[in-house]
Parts: sequence; C-alpha cells; structure tokens
Amino acid sequence: MASSSSSSSYIFLILLFIILCVEPSQTKSIYLPRNNFQSSLLANKHEKTKMPLKVHYFPQILDHFTFLPKSSKVFYQKYLINDQYWNKDGGGPIFVYTGNEGNIDWFAVNTGFMFDIAPKFNALLVFIEHRFYGDSMPFGNNSYKSAKTLGYLNSQQALADYAVLIRSLKQNISSESSPVVVFGGSYGGMLAAWFRLKYPHIAIGAVASSAPILHFDKITPRSSFYDAVSQDFKEASLNCYEVIKGSWAELDALSTHEDGLIEVSKLFRTCKGLHSVYSARDWLWEAFVYTAMVNYPTEANFMMPLPAYPVEEMCKIIDGLPKGASRLSKAFAASSLYYNYTQTEKCFNLEGGTDAHGLHGWDWQACTEMVMPMTCSNESMFPPTSYSYKEFAQDCKKRYGVEPRPHWITTEYGGYRIEQVLKKFGSNMIFSNGMQDPWSRGGVLKNISASIVALVTQKGAHHVDFRSETKNDPDWLIMQRKQEVAIIQNWLDEYNKDLKQN
Amino acid sequence: MASSSSSSSYIFLILLFIILCVEPSQTKSIYLPRNNFQSSLLANKHEKTKMPLKVHYFPQILDHFTFLPKSSKVFYQKYLINDQYWNKDGGGPIFVYTGNEGNIDWFAVNTGFMFDIAPKFNALLVFIEHRFYGDSMPFGNNSYKSAKTLGYLNSQQALADYAVLIRSLKQNISSESSPVVVFGGSYGGMLAAWFRLKYPHIAIGAVASSAPILHFDKITPRSSFYDAVSQDFKEASLNCYEVIKGSWAELDALSTHEDGLIEVSKLFRTCKGLHSVYSARDWLWEAFVYTAMVNYPTEANFMMPLPAYPVEEMCKIIDGLPKGASRLSKAFAASSLYYNYTQTEKCFNLEGGTDAHGLHGWDWQACTEMVMPMTCSNESMFPPTSYSYKEFAQDCKKRYGVEPRPHWITTEYGGYRIEQVLKKFGSNMIFSNGMQDPWSRGGVLKNISASIVALVTQKGAHHVDFRSETKNDPDWLIMQRKQEVAIIQNWLDEYNKDLKQN
Repeated sequence: MASSSSSSSYIFLILLFIILCVEPSQTKSIYLPRNNFQSSLLANKHEKTKMPLKVHYFPQILDHFTFLPKSSKVFYQKYLINDQYWNKDGGGPIFVYTGNEGNIDWFAVNTGFMFDIAPKFNALLVFIEHRFYGDSMPFGNNSYKSAKTLGYLNSQQALADYAVLIRSLKQNISSESSPVVVFGGSYGGMLAAWFRLKYPHIAIGAVASSAPILHFDKITPRSSFYDAVSQDFKEASLNCYEVIKGSWAELDALSTHEDGLIEVSKLFRTCKGLHSVYSARDWLWEAFVYTAMVNYPTEANFMMPLPAYPVEEMCKIIDGLPKGASRLSKAFAASSLYYNYTQTEKCFNLEGGTDAHGLHGWDWQACTEMVMPMTCSNESMFPPTSYSYKEFAQDCKKRYGVEPRPHWITTEYGGYRIEQVLKKFGSNMIFSNGMQDPWSRGGVLKNISASIVALVTQKGAHHVDFRSETKNDPDWLIMQRKQEVAIIQNWLDEYNKDLKQN
Repeated sequence: MASSSSSSSYIFLILLFIILCVEPSQTKSIYLPRNNFQSSLLANKHEKTKMPLKVHYFPQILDHFTFLPKSSKVFYQKYLINDQYWNKDGGGPIFVYTGNEGNIDWFAVNTGFMFDIAPKFNALLVFIEHRFYGDSMPFGNNSYKSAKTLGYLNSQQALADYAVLIRSLKQNISSESSPVVVFGGSYGGMLAAWFRLKYPHIAIGAVASSAPILHFDKITPRSSFYDAVSQDFKEASLNCYEVIKGSWAELDALSTHEDGLIEVSKLFRTCKGLHSVYSARDWLWEAFVYTAMVNYPTEANFMMPLPAYPVEEMCKIIDGLPKGASRLSKAFAASSLYYNYTQTEKCFNLEGGTDAHGLHGWDWQACTEMVMPMTCSNESMFPPTSYSYKEFAQDCKKRYGVEPRPHWITTEYGGYRIEQVLKKFGSNMIFSNGMQDPWSRGGVLKNISASIVALVTQKGAHHVDFRSETKNDPDWLIMQRKQEVAIIQNWLDEYNKDLKQN
C-alpha cells in the first residue's frame, strides 16, 4: 500500500493536505493517530437521528477523458441521500456536497449546515463520495497498488464523476429542472468552486467553505500557512507562542543525547518506546496545526473532541505551568489537549497511527497535481525551512513512479489574476473563510463581484460555517450562516424567475 | 488504419463531420475525393506571400487527465506562428486558432481573416494543430492503429493541449500579460467557444464561426441539417430541388437493373467501373452537402475550387438541361460543378478517394463523443431516413471496440438551456453563422447577453467570415467582419483597462 510507505519526503498530515515545512530528508510518513472518532460518531444518538442518510451506489465510468478500451470500466461510487425535506414539485433544490479526501459519511456528519437549512429550502440532500476514498474504490483492494491504478485519482475525474452522477440522478428522479447548488469544505470547497467554474450548466451556484484555491504555484506566499498557525497562538498568548517556538531546539538536543529516545518516550507518555525522536516532533506539529484549523468557538469533534477555542485552552495550559518546566514538557502538555481532551488515554501511540477516515489518498494527490509548496519563516513558531521542488519531485517519483505537474492546477482552473477573470466570467459563488484557519490565506478573501462573494470572519476556523448549529454559536457565526442562506435563496429566486420566463 | 475500414455504419463525409442520413446497413466509408487542393495552395503565390508562417513543435503531454505512468509520454504538437505584425510591448494581443480535424496548414490558409486583421491589432498569430491530425501524431504512424492509441483523441484533451501550449508559449516569449483571443471555425469554432468556457483565465474571448455546439443529444431537431441543405437548393430553384429529390429513385432503380453498374459508371464518367451504385449516391450527396456549406458569395477554394454562389450555379445547370433528360443525369451534371469547376478532370474517381487534408480522425471522434444524430425528413431533397442509436453504437463498437458516449458532450460542455446558463455565467464570445450553411441550425443564433453575441447573416455560408477578404465581398460580409473587429477591440480595451487598474 502506498499509504504505508515511509520513503516520502513529505509528511502528509493527512486531512486537508497539510504539507509540513520540514527538511525532506529528515521526515517520514505519519498518519492519523489512533482514535475512536468514527465509532463514537456512530454511537452519537443526536447525529444519528438528525442525519438519516440512505446509501446508494452509482455505476461510474473509470476515465471520462479518454476512450481507451479500459476507460469505460465501471466502478461503484457511493453517495448518500436525504429526501425527508424535499419538495420536488414545489421547486425544492438539490444540495450536493462534492466529497473530498475521505469517507463521505464523515463529511456528511460534519456538514450539519446542509441538514439545518434543508427544511427551509425543501431541499434534497446528496453527498457524493470522491473516487478512491471510502467505499468508492475503482479497483477494490487493489486501488492503491500503484500508479497504474492510482493514476485515475485526480480532481478533474472527480468533477466529471459529479457531473455525470448528478445528471443521471436528476433524470432518474424526473427532476431535470430542479436547481443544483454544490457545497464543499476544504478540498471539497475547491471542488465545489471548480465545479461551478467548469460545469455552470449543472450547478447554479457553489458554496465553497475554507477552499484554498489560491494555494498553488506562487500565488500565495509560501510561508503564509505556518505564519497563520503561529499567529493564532501568538494572539492567544505571546508566552505560549515563544514556548512552542523554543521547544523544537530542546527536542533536537534530545535527539543527539544518548538516552534521548528513552527520555522523549517518557516525557510523551508513549505506550511503546519510540523509534525516532521525529515522531514526537510530528506529533506535536500535528496537534498545533489541527488545533489552529479547528479553533472553533464551541466544543466540537471534527478530528478530535476539543473544547471551544482550543488554541486559547492550549495556551492556558502552557501559561499555567511553572516557569522552571522545560518548553518541551509544556508543548507536550498543550498537545495532550488535542489527543486527550476526554481524558481517556493512559498513554499515547506516537508511531503507527491508523487512518480512521480513509484519507491517505491525499499523499498521491499532493504528489501529482495538488502541489502546494510551503515553508516556515523565521517568524513562525516552527523551525524555519526552505522548499526544494527538485527534492519534492524526486521523492514523488521514487514513491509512485510519476512526476508531479506543479503548474497543472493553475493551468486547468486558473489562479493568477483570479479576481479579474471571475469579475468578467462567473457568478453565484460564496467563498467563506475564517481567519483562524491557516488555509484561509490561500482563499478568496475579497468580494469579486455582486454574485461572487467572500464571507470572512476573523474568529472563524476551518469550514466552521458548515458545522451543525449549536445553542452556543456566537453571533458572527449565526450572521455568517444567515448571509449564506440569503445568498443561496437569491440564486434560487433568480433561477426560478428565469425558468418561468423561458 | 481505421481510416480505411469499410465496416462503418456511417459515411463520414470527412470535413466537418457530416453524418449522412442513410440507412446504416447500406453505407460504407468514403473519403475526400482526390484533388490537388493542397498542392495548389502551396503554389498559390498570393497565399504564400501573405501568410508566412513559421513551423514549431511543442512537447505535449499525452494524457492531461490521468497520472498513469504512461500519461506523461510526450509527443510533438505542431503549431504555426506569424509575428510580423506583433507589437508585444505596445500591448499587441495573441490570436490563437484552435485547430480542428485536419492539417493545421489548411486551416491557417483558409483563415485569412486573422491575417487581414493582425496589422490593425498588432497581433501575434498562432495556429495550433489538433492532436491526431496532420503532423501531431502522438504515436507516429501507429496513432490510428486501434482504440488503445486513438483513445487519447478527444476534445477535452485538445483543449488542455491548447491551454498548456499557450501558457508555455507566453512564458517563453515573456508575454504573460498579453491578452489571448481564440478563433475557430466549425469544430474548431466549437473548440474556441468551449475553450473560453473552460479556460476563461487563458483566453479573454472567443470568436466561434459556424460552431454547431447545439447539435448534440436532442437540442437541435435531427432533420434540421438536411432540411437546411435542401432549403438552399429550393431557394435557388424549385425545379432544381425537385430534380435532385427525384434523382435518388432513378439511381435506386438502376441498382436493381442487370447492367445498372455499367450504366451508372458510364453516366458518371467514372475512370474505373464502379463496385457499387451507392458510390454514386455518396458522390452526389457529398457534392450537394458541401456546396450548400460553402455557398460563398465569391469564388473560393476551400474543399474544391468553386464559383461564387455555387448552389445557384448548380441549379442553373439543372434548370438549363432539356426537360427530357433524366433527373439522375441532371444531378450528375450539377455535381460535376463541384468536382470539376476547373474543367481539368477527364473522368471521375468515385471510389477510393484520398484524404488530402488528413481529416479521417473525425470518424473516431464521431463514434466516441461527437455523436450528432441526423435524419432526413420527407421535406428534404434526400431520401427520408430514421436514426437508430442502437445500430450506430453497434457499428462503432464493431469498428473501434468502444462504446459511444452520446450524452457526454452535453454533460461536459452544456447545451440544454445554454442561453440561460451563459446569460448568468460567461462573457466575450462571438457566435457567427451564415444561414446558407446547414450547420447554422445547430449554432447559437441569438444574442445571449451584451458580451455573448450572435452574428447571423442570411447569405453567409460555412465560416465565410474567416476567409481572406476579396475585392468582391458583399456589403453584409464586410459589415459582419467589421462588427467582429469592433467587438474584439472592445474585449481588448476592457482587458487593458483592467490591467492598468490592478
């Protein structure tokens, strides 16, 4: 399995394709830490009753863009449907979630917004799984065997899958004139935006939440991602930021120490002795990055169960520890919030985590078209690093036997001067971003036109607007969702007006 | 070679993908009749001096939409450049012809309009050859061997070729900010329009001449093409139309006659005895269809050298013959105008014509994605026919081993409710059509918005606006071209204004 390879030069902190800015030669692959997230989801009564979804499988074509004899091979693409609020004859729309790099169930459960607004719109909800994730494996268990099978995993094929499936579905349920709005978060948001760009005849609008469509080539400064993570911690507490920034040197020092591994294992309360000090570094890194991303204003459980504003909570832990304690021990204590907020873990598995949400296909995508170069600047709380495309490409070649195409995304979807292009060409798109989320720096942060709108919240995090509403939601979040509902309503009103006229 | 197969259920009158509306079981493949068109072009001093083009080859990627190990194979794509009028630093644009189903030289020479307007715009001219045509063969002489190689021939790959080539070219000549306008006629016009739709970040506008983008699925009535051909002849002379309409039965009668083949060979002055009466039918058919398409207001040489308004000339021949002469002999005399306007042919080769412009790849395209169902109605001057998708698909399968995807074009590019879609999404497109051209019936014939404009001329024929200006051009043609120039100028002005502001 490609996913278990340790030869990659990149650490793909799988979900949401974080590429760590560490020296390639020093890294290895890690995966999601073991957690009971998915099973706890299924056990969650609230979610279960609120989101009844019927599972379907669509016979999808393997390769939309060639007509080789094997291109027409069929695989079964999973999609989920909720029709309890749908009023087809009353003009109810179809809301489609364009699935991203994981099991579709997981994205469905974490996109409560669509369920919350479905009754208001009398909408049909459809969640489509991305090819090569979850159950949608074109070659079954062999799907990840090599580039000969993985080669069919990319965003253009995924968009075409959505186009073909939506068209067929509408035909099957005799709702050809029902308007379709696409929704997506993170990479799914990129797909939603690109779908509106490439298939405007199928989707009348797109809601792209936390979609870093400008994180390619040199459009967004390469250090912006980790600078943004660092900014979150700095804003919470300058001391906290400085402690974390200083912790890496202490870890490095231990790595050269004779009993370094034993000491680190002890400090990090590992269940088993560590094989590499770098596992501890990756473990910390993941905790800080994900916590910044999901710095939600309410208690939530996306990657891990976490309290409201978890970055502030982490910094409270650091600031509350005695001055004499080492920075590394403080960093460990803070990251324990991420891994053990529920206080159920007696020890931690820093090495050999599982991939509960089936996200490891992103490694391949990042090595082929999703090339997002990142570095850590001197101002970040991470060790400063540079970026070598050459080394990156060599490692991808070694790992998968293919060359990345670093300029392909901007050639296929644009990026440079996107505002000017979309102002003249395009409509009906929402780009929502929360500035707590480091991915926001690669997003569309300014209104482009009257109908291509940027909704930016200073305290928002990674697609927080897509989460189920809670009684503790702050006003700015309630307001943001209201704006989204009003804009979508406007798209539908215009569509229905046009439909009547023609 | 696929091109020499005679098992096809369709007669592809190659250029511009005409699918004859005859019963599949009665047909076979024919190709362009032998003619010295291309060599005469090269000998044409006027064209030669007016259109100096430098030949280049671009290392193009085989498959843009998968990352299989073999996808990155490189082939050499031909493109032609004229930079004699270019003023890059003065903001001169890049005019790109998106090549269609033939040798690019041929399209370049027949798109004199671009050369005529280049000095006014200080434009760089680029003509890009379509993959699998002319010299742009991904697998050399084996390119047409089977579906395993031909599978890479389709419109999406062609559009991506253009995107990659244009971006690379602009980078190489340090002209990233130069605006690009794409031009195309017929299938090339479809490509130009689709390019603007899918790659608005690369082309600021598209001039799509005689582009039947609505000739798919059931958008355009299936009988419209042959009804339009018939209409041209009927307008020239009712008697002419009736004579042609009646000629098929006479040919059919001969086909059952003992000496039928000999009689037809004699009547049609064939160089060799015919093997099938149907060859005569196809030969007539081709003459009438092409002559309607190229019913230009001036003497021209696109498919064949022809006088001005050749449909009228054909009908004059028919109307001038004695009443007692058979309809078939009159039809033959009329079609001789098409095959022998220069009076140089002593006899005709109705069977085994050559493919001087390298157009036979269209057979494959029509059997995969370019599925354009056509029938002949009772009102047409052709024998009435029905359409069986099942038979069509079976024959394609038999011929190439692949299934057509009849709904793919409308899924990928839209089509249904195109006006509504483009009104909300899109800009800067010209759809020009001449109503003499039967393909116009599948074109965009009404303005869609202020910046998506339909220029329709009643007396125009197949991309007549793209031909070199002549001293005999009628006012309506001069006016049409002036409108096009003004609209393009407007696109450029807007682009340059934006560029200065940002």
